[in-house]
Amino acid sequence: MSAAARPPARIRLGMVGGGEGAFIGGVHRMAARLDDQYSLLAAAPSATPERALRSGRALGLDEARIYTDYEVMARAEAARDDGIEAVAIVTPNHLHAPVARAFLKAGIHVICDKPVALSSRQARELQRLAVRQGRLFAVTHNYAGYAMVRQAREMVRRGQLGELRLVRVEYAQDWLAEPLEASGHKQADWRTDPARAGAGGCIGDIGTHAYQLAEYITGLTPTSLCAELSTFVADRALDDHVQVMLRYANGARGTLWASQVATGHENDLRIAVYGSRGGLRWRQQQPEQLHWTVLGQPAQLLTRGGPANDAAAQRVTRLPAGHPEGYLEGFATIYSEIAQHLRAARPGGARAERAANFPTLADGLRGMQFIEAAVASSRRGGRWVRLPAAA
Amino acid sequence: MSAAARPPARIRLGMVGGGEGAFIGGVHRMAARLDDQYSLLAAAPSATPERALRSGRALGLDEARIYTDYEVMARAEAARDDGIEAVAIVTPNHLHAPVARAFLKAGIHVICDKPVALSSRQARELQRLAVRQGRLFAVTHNYAGYAMVRQAREMVRRGQLGELRLVRVEYAQDWLAEPLEASGHKQADWRTDPARAGAGGCIGDIGTHAYQLAEYITGLTPTSLCAELSTFVADRALDDHVQVMLRYANGARGTLWASQVATGHENDLRIAVYGSRGGLRWRQQQPEQLHWTVLGQPAQLLTRGGPANDAAAQRVTRLPAGHPEGYLEGFATIYSEIAQHLRAARPGGARAERAANFPTLADGLRGMQFIEAAVASSRRGGRWVRLPAAA
Amino acid sequence: MSAAARPPARIRLGMVGGGEGAFIGGVHRMAARLDDQYSLLAAAPSATPERALRSGRALGLDEARIYTDYEVMARAEAARDDGIEAVAIVTPNHLHAPVARAFLKAGIHVICDKPVALSSRQARELQRLAVRQGRLFAVTHNYAGYAMVRQAREMVRRGQLGELRLVRVEYAQDWLAEPLEASGHKQADWRTDPARAGAGGCIGDIGTHAYQLAEYITGLTPTSLCAELSTFVADRALDDHVQVMLRYANGARGTLWASQVATGHENDLRIAVYGSRGGLRWRQQQPEQLHWTVLGQPAQLLTRGGPANDAAAQRVTRLPAGHPEGYLEGFATIYSEIAQHLRAARPGGARAERAANFPTLADGLRGMQFIEAAVASSRRGGRWVRLPAAA
Amino acid sequence: MSAAARPPARIRLGMVGGGEGAFIGGVHRMAARLDDQYSLLAAAPSATPERALRSGRALGLDEARIYTDYEVMARAEAARDDGIEAVAIVTPNHLHAPVARAFLKAGIHVICDKPVALSSRQARELQRLAVRQGRLFAVTHNYAGYAMVRQAREMVRRGQLGELRLVRVEYAQDWLAEPLEASGHKQADWRTDPARAGAGGCIGDIGTHAYQLAEYITGLTPTSLCAELSTFVADRALDDHVQVMLRYANGARGTLWASQVATGHENDLRIAVYGSRGGLRWRQQQPEQLHWTVLGQPAQLLTRGGPANDAAAQRVTRLPAGHPEGYLEGFATIYSEIAQHLRAARPGGARAERAANFPTLADGLRGMQFIEAAVASSRRGGRWVRLPAAA
Repeated sequence: MSAAARPPARIRLGMVGGGEGAFIGGVHRMAARLDDQYSLLAAAPSATPERALRSGRALGLDEARIYTDYEVMARAEAARDDGIEAVAIVTPNHLHAPVARAFLKAGIHVICDKPVALSSRQARELQRLAVRQGRLFAVTHNYAGYAMVRQAREMVRRGQLGELRLVRVEYAQDWLAEPLEASGHKQADWRTDPARAGAGGCIGDIGTHAYQLAEYITGLTPTSLCAELSTFVADRALDDHVQVMLRYANGARGTLWASQVATGHENDLRIAVYGSRGGLRWRQQQPEQLHWTVLGQPAQLLTRGGPANDAAAQRVTRLPAGHPEGYLEGFATIYSEIAQHLRAARPGGARAERAANFPTLADGLRGMQFIEAAVASSRRGGRWVRLPAAA
Repeated sequence: MSAAARPPARIRLGMVGGGEGAFIGGVHRMAARLDDQYSLLAAAPSATPERALRSGRALGLDEARIYTDYEVMARAEAARDDGIEAVAIVTPNHLHAPVARAFLKAGIHVICDKPVALSSRQARELQRLAVRQGRLFAVTHNYAGYAMVRQAREMVRRGQLGELRLVRVEYAQDWLAEPLEASGHKQADWRTDPARAGAGGCIGDIGTHAYQLAEYITGLTPTSLCAELSTFVADRALDDHVQVMLRYANGARGTLWASQVATGHENDLRIAVYGSRGGLRWRQQQPEQLHWTVLGQPAQLLTRGGPANDAAAQRVTRLPAGHPEGYLEGFATIYSEIAQHLRAARPGGARAERAANFPTLADGLRGMQFIEAAVASSRRGGRWVRLPAAA
Repeated sequence: MSAAARPPARIRLGMVGGGEGAFIGGVHRMAARLDDQYSLLAAAPSATPERALRSGRALGLDEARIYTDYEVMARAEAARDDGIEAVAIVTPNHLHAPVARAFLKAGIHVICDKPVALSSRQARELQRLAVRQGRLFAVTHNYAGYAMVRQAREMVRRGQLGELRLVRVEYAQDWLAEPLEASGHKQADWRTDPARAGAGGCIGDIGTHAYQLAEYITGLTPTSLCAELSTFVADRALDDHVQVMLRYANGARGTLWASQVATGHENDLRIAVYGSRGGLRWRQQQPEQLHWTVLGQPAQLLTRGGPANDAAAQRVTRLPAGHPEGYLEGFATIYSEIAQHLRAARPGGARAERAANFPTLADGLRGMQFIEAAVASSRRGGRWVRLPAAA
Repeated sequence: MSAAARPPARIRLGMVGGGEGAFIGGVHRMAARLDDQYSLLAAAPSATPERALRSGRALGLDEARIYTDYEVMARAEAARDDGIEAVAIVTPNHLHAPVARAFLKAGIHVICDKPVALSSRQARELQRLAVRQGRLFAVTHNYAGYAMVRQAREMVRRGQLGELRLVRVEYAQDWLAEPLEASGHKQADWRTDPARAGAGGCIGDIGTHAYQLAEYITGLTPTSLCAELSTFVADRALDDHVQVMLRYANGARGTLWASQVATGHENDLRIAVYGSRGGLRWRQQQPEQLHWTVLGQPAQLLTRGGPANDAAAQRVTRLPAGHPEGYLEGFATIYSEIAQHLRAARPGGARAERAANFPTLADGLRGMQFIEAAVASSRRGGRWVRLPAAA
């Protein structure tokens, strides 16, 4: 029996943000735990000592490794023999870049929520820093973790759709249809505040997910866009709705719609891709199913774990068909792929990351460029604006 | 027992177009027949004598009333005591206006397929002529006939959605994803020929339906649009795909998507309308159901004939809930409402027509204005273009 | 041009029942009208002279051909040169047999609603009479008219499912979940009255439809059954719910469920058939779609008018895919096939009828046998009871 | 800050079964891990030393706590200060009872997969033993862990459905539609072997889940049943299909269908419950949604995390609406509730367990009684058989 049978040691993980009342921090923790690839050992859950301590204790952390200052945490952990190898950044948007910077400088890999920064300039600086430090910068565009998204991507890659013609992605929610921020709702509060959320409201919070998903599945980055951001709720400082038309280099056309005021939609991310030979449709709220049509044949329902799943989908499948996997499993897939990537001792930087199936800072940067182009287009009254070419 | 119990005499109907190999002519005839409000007595099914005779006989028409020339038909029928009262025009698009003109001049009411003309100028001339002649000009935007569309319209009117914010309409087909016209397919042939279809391909054929449906349900006409028409099939002379962003006077925003190359969609007309208090969704391929959500409450499925149907929906309901009505029933509703309108001896012209629940030339004119604005916007590279105000 | 191009003369049709306040009479009339194969010329809509006259006039009938007595009508119409060729019987159940008897004796073909009689003995007498008179006896099990039901039947016939193993059919409604009959509701009133509905309530009204549909698609008649009829609404004289287990000669097993107290179901007739190689599912409320799975392959959605439709489905298709056909179209298909059958001058009787695609008295008889066996099984506390072999 | 903020220590967990090639062992481990309430510290994954060691190492276990003999494991763990508190039993069915007995005797709590034993007699012996030892015996009827199942149960309890009339539960799969066991498929192999699976094949494997779910939601245990077990695949020793009719003490009626040869179904567990005032429907493959209809009102779609969720559902909800939770989350809920129960230091035995929301040996016993009654009914040709009253 070979030693190889030993399971690899768990990745030592830290977290910044995600204290009491936060939503996404808990999700990251469950995702990291599901496949047993991480140990959460340190955290800076809050800048307020009492809250930080309370949150850190509730996580079962050693009190010596509960921090209130992420700079301190980065240095302290870097100095320990058993210090964290990677940090998960789950703060409001404006802190993503400075926190990431601190940990990269300390030589610690970064797993960051989106949008990765407040500007594409910031994102590019982070990119340079990560390369210089040889550290990974992963971005939790978690929807890329669904098995049927992997299946769709593989079918596009293999040419089953023929030449791509149309890309339609939409992400509709309704939780901000009323001025929730006015009543002190924590999630609504920072997401509608330009100082903490950045220049984009809805477009940054969910539009970037939709944009990344379309890129991820199609392999195409748009060359230009025409966007209109709107704010329907009075006294709100950021957009709560965005509609965008997209052009691609190969002549394909696309649309992106993201709304947080679309009454009747909960977390309704959908994508459809149409080519000269076939068309695909997927919906996040029924993630186990991929609607697939070859031109001139009856539509097929591909199901996760069912017949006709490619290796790309099977690799990220835990349960047999009909035993629903969901949001956490997709998120966990991203985390587990990051762990495998780290264990393979691949250096950070663009080349290694390009080979990864999980999203990285390159995606995060393009997300920032998308936000900036859309905001610019909208400010000019809905003019077409060019997007930077994908690096 | 009063004489009122006698059923009203059937409207004497003629038809131009709809001969062998046509699709929509047969639909009009079934629609006219379903509620027993019409007698088809005369037709000009083809300009070729042999084909006209063969088609007319197959319809059981008196040979004396089978015509090859619509001008002759208009004059001859006008001269008969038992001449037709209304004519259904089901030709390719380029003949709509000249045929309508001939019958209006002869004092015969017009029931015309869409788009009503090749230009808004033509449409306006027809409008003036109809008013002058005191004749009705109805347009078979048949999707307005569905009971759940009536229900949706009524709910918007009554304010159940609050202030309207978003209008999203899409109409996806895939039957032109390949160059069907190259193989002599009759329906594809004229629809992709600018000489017979007009300046718009997909936008005229199905985009106008989507546009009218959005107007019909919301009561809103956009003030400006930004459109991009595309042609994905090589050597096709007209667009087979269009995507449009819309702005409304009240600040609402909208999108319209129409495609005939969206593989996997058959006749997939959908609309969603979102307001400050509620949201509605409807899909033509499951027309019996209306998805309705009041903000903060569970979604409801309203069904035709089921609980909570308004009088506006009940009036156009023939069968109990769960006994599916479909495309022909919706089309028949338009025909039957036209018959009732004619029997009520209302004069033609804008005022009377505005009271009608069925679409009329005013809708047809706005459809032409939509096509023209979209073509203009697209030709200018996707610039925003103003739409004329609804009269 | 040959005289053959003339459309065949319409079948001269009469109707018994279907006066004011009736539901199914209007459905039969629309169904007969849709494909323009019938002229309704005579009727006995009510036994009350004033009501009969009012109803008959509303149908536009010649007053001389509005009757109050079906015996008189049968004789009078048989005596006319232009007398009716066929009669549609749309009365409450208890009148089906006596009315049918009168018209068969007068040499007039019968189109009868289900259940065809109050007992299988009565049904067999009618069968002998029809054969003796050489007249057709069609039964409007209308669900057999749906295109996707034809498709399903053809796929079973061709062996695409392999050896049949399981048949599951259910028909759920909720309109009798409360004692509607107590409030004078006309439809509920006679359906819950043994004197007019017969020995079966729910089982006769909708159970027979479910039973016939299963037979129609599978070609299998069960050999025995175990049934339990229940009455959930207090003071109701007939069953409002039935559940049945079925055994087939080839070893297949089945279940039938019919309920009129299943809150949340409108007219929810569903069937699933599973074989050793494939499985089919169909639902009447989404009749355009057939869910089809070959073992080991992804599920397919066959759609009416779409790819992979057999000739059997195409023959009864009026509209392109995605233009919903529904209940009336299915019903109209039965009527039109009857018209074609009559024009082909086929004699009535079992042999000719067996070749028909529409349901006939043989189906009606088996429906009666099913009711009787189920009632017998239920009365004996749910014992297994043999069914007569299909003739 | 109080010490109470410390998270409770994780429950020390062992596992018997679940080695290489097993399915459900991995599920139990993920479920135990998701909410961070357990530490897996010991296991007997296989009786073969090499396989046991390989499997145990892959789980990261201390080699001293990797066992090949569950008796040895029970004694050894009981003797350790840091020995396991509870054991998860995930072996083939025939080992459930002997393994459970060994651990109960050693004073270790049991978490056992279903069916809990090979006979109701065995189950009752276990029950007595558990009471005597004061240890918990939980059964992983995991479908009881879904939030919308909790919601349904609460709505029934609160009387929102009125008096219950009908219970319809079905569990359809197709993975055994062919003789998979003949090709050495490990899961198929033992499940079709009476020596390891017990007297029931399909009925034991999935029928018991369906039965438990119906009991769990309705709170009703049937008083008698009529069942037919079938085997459709040649040379199979156990049933692969079962259909059952159920009677309840309050006059309600029910059906249960379970099949492993229903081509086109993956893991299709569904339940519908109808009462005098409302009806509920739930489907495991779309677990986030509960279809709810109040008689006379439009159907509502309740969604997990959405409006109108009861506390009973909210308590087991991890993510916001529209972020799909699935099979593992439901399973994890059972595990986490067991952990909370153990920490509350409640003694084992019927009384404490009755208060639990997770299924226990009482459910497991009734499942055995259901299997036995169904087998008996089927062997007698489908006669009605009484079920023991729920204790």
